[in-house]
Amino acid sequence: MTSDVAIVAIGLTKFGKRDDVSYRELLGDSVRNAFLDSGEITPQDIEGLYVASAQPEPLVDQAHVANLATEYLGIYPKLVSRIEMACSSGGTAIRHAMIAIKSGMVDTVLCVGVEKMNEHPGVAFRNLCIVPDVTWESAHGMTAPGGFALMAQLHMKKYGTTREQMALVGVKSKKYGSMNPNAHYGKPVTLEDVLNARMIAWPLGLLDCSGISDGAAAAILTRADLAKKFTDSPIMILGSGQALEPANISANMKSLTEWDALRRAADTAYKMAGKTPQDIDVAEVHDCFTISEIIETEELGFCKKGEGGKMIEEGQTEVGGTIPLNISGGLISKGHPIGATGITQAVDVILQLRGDAGKRQVEGAEVGLTQNLSGFASHHVVHIYSV
Amino acid sequence: MTSDVAIVAIGLTKFGKRDDVSYRELLGDSVRNAFLDSGEITPQDIEGLYVASAQPEPLVDQAHVANLATEYLGIYPKLVSRIEMACSSGGTAIRHAMIAIKSGMVDTVLCVGVEKMNEHPGVAFRNLCIVPDVTWESAHGMTAPGGFALMAQLHMKKYGTTREQMALVGVKSKKYGSMNPNAHYGKPVTLEDVLNARMIAWPLGLLDCSGISDGAAAAILTRADLAKKFTDSPIMILGSGQALEPANISANMKSLTEWDALRRAADTAYKMAGKTPQDIDVAEVHDCFTISEIIETEELGFCKKGEGGKMIEEGQTEVGGTIPLNISGGLISKGHPIGATGITQAVDVILQLRGDAGKRQVEGAEVGLTQNLSGFASHHVVHIYSV
Repeated sequence: MTSDVAIVAIGLTKFGKRDDVSYRELLGDSVRNAFLDSGEITPQDIEGLYVASAQPEPLVDQAHVANLATEYLGIYPKLVSRIEMACSSGGTAIRHAMIAIKSGMVDTVLCVGVEKMNEHPGVAFRNLCIVPDVTWESAHGMTAPGGFALMAQLHMKKYGTTREQMALVGVKSKKYGSMNPNAHYGKPVTLEDVLNARMIAWPLGLLDCSGISDGAAAAILTRADLAKKFTDSPIMILGSGQALEPANISANMKSLTEWDALRRAADTAYKMAGKTPQDIDVAEVHDCFTISEIIETEELGFCKKGEGGKMIEEGQTEVGGTIPLNISGGLISKGHPIGATGITQAVDVILQLRGDAGKRQVEGAEVGLTQNLSGFASHHVVHIYSV
Repeated sequence: MTSDVAIVAIGLTKFGKRDDVSYRELLGDSVRNAFLDSGEITPQDIEGLYVASAQPEPLVDQAHVANLATEYLGIYPKLVSRIEMACSSGGTAIRHAMIAIKSGMVDTVLCVGVEKMNEHPGVAFRNLCIVPDVTWESAHGMTAPGGFALMAQLHMKKYGTTREQMALVGVKSKKYGSMNPNAHYGKPVTLEDVLNARMIAWPLGLLDCSGISDGAAAAILTRADLAKKFTDSPIMILGSGQALEPANISANMKSLTEWDALRRAADTAYKMAGKTPQDIDVAEVHDCFTISEIIETEELGFCKKGEGGKMIEEGQTEVGGTIPLNISGGLISKGHPIGATGITQAVDVILQLRGDAGKRQVEGAEVGLTQNLSGFASHHVVHIYSV
């Protein structure tokens, strides 16, 4: 059983500090690029619209952004919502678009993810702090870097993962980010650069962290049997999985190093797709921090538990390795405009599956995976795509 | 064609200024009441969760509220999102739950709507002002009362609707609100009270406006063929329609008095349900202002265009009239905790269809309708329910 849903058009904007455009222009630019990507889709074809945006109210002083999107795009579909799941809003939107098409209520759905985080200095940092449970976590000082630093420390203790292995994830990220013209942080760095960068929350330094970016990404989904109307190179959604687990690090999360929800989300997606981790040729995973990519390498089944650090050290997650990860540059280099991130992951995997990834191409890639998380890894959305 | 989806459990909290509970407690109370309402649903039955909440970030300093909800409820379904469409978040969540069930991906979905608007004085008013397009509307002084006042003035000019007719909507609202133990504003008022209340935006006075409330509402949906497992009195969703139109009053909205998007949303819902306006026995409509209910009476087909004012004057929208509207008290008396509103509308119609509306019962009601809007009436969600 697959989803019987295909992605037939994709669009991106440049990620970065985008003082040159407004929130709605960013959103519109990614959608325009998606329409241009196909060339065969008209606004009238769009029957559903999901806008993935995490915090436009504090970040750009605008609420009701799905309504704003219809107005700005001049598209008024019969199924519309903003989808918000913090850092995994984009992946969640794609899952909902797929489900809406499967319901038979709509044939073609536009997903657009957008965030403009640099409009008011300091506001993004403040508002990232209200993503965890404010009463039980944030109010006691638990921030995102702090939470993932605890995970890193425990992973080091339990599995012998080293500071250098994490830093290598940062080096790889910037290496591929430097080949991605849309990336926010495109300058290559050395291992020493990462190790000597300003400490944020030990062991994570500045170059172990994703940044505060502006950007947008769009994808248009349709029924598999209609896909050839819109493009010669449709990409199928083979599998989709979503799972949550108790979120509060202070009390409830089962383990900081074994991510139960990710295992379940991945398991669901693999089963639905009829694929195993060994079938995956390329993946975009949620490297909000370098340690995240290491844990995800393990939980997605690309290596044994505890060997994620060894995988990066051996170059297995590079182009030419057993499972190239974040060849777009990932969140750390490409940037992490919250609502856009999950949709960008799909776009970057699809570029690989189409053979359109340029200098970053993984030769012969036919099956790809995306993994988008939110909270302290309490929520995951995994998708599997193929040509 | 109906939706093949039923609502099998409903739960409400008291609406009002709820300083006695936190945001998560409000949410949890409505869900607990829904579980108690059925008595047969276990947390394990819940495969999907939609949290309708419009602005928890500024209102209660908490983002990622769907994740918070899973944590607080101890329920970790395989399909989860927060749904945000401003004042119509609740109706949109019900539409998405129905679609998710129709997709075959999940059988049983919990929708919970919640808003806590009185935690920080003034913040709700400020943030209601960012619901319209901030660049082209709010920044130039266009607020919700101002926008609906323009609609009222034009309706008066075009159709001869009177200030007194609007005020009568306020009197009816408070009359039924006084019979609703969950209502925020439960004191009956006279026509003179409404006419002499403090002017907000002419012709709309304070008692023509919905208030700033805290509250939550929950509904559990399942496949029609599973419904009898959970309750002896399932209510079917017969029809669902959603539509948008250009939103900006300053330039784009086609007409301030003929609500094109509402006509289309209603038309879709009626057709899907195989019903006409004459088949509707009771309805909850979005009376954010008294003029809204008058225009909705017309656009939903309960009278000819322009005769909405006459309908309230003749008592046709009271219990015993041709189409009893907002017998719960509606937004004006019950309160308008943004995210909860659309789900409360469903709950109140379902109480009527079950014959459980107590003193407010419309005898023999078998088919009910809800209509939930957002923006300057640029977005509408309509549902039709039956026993």
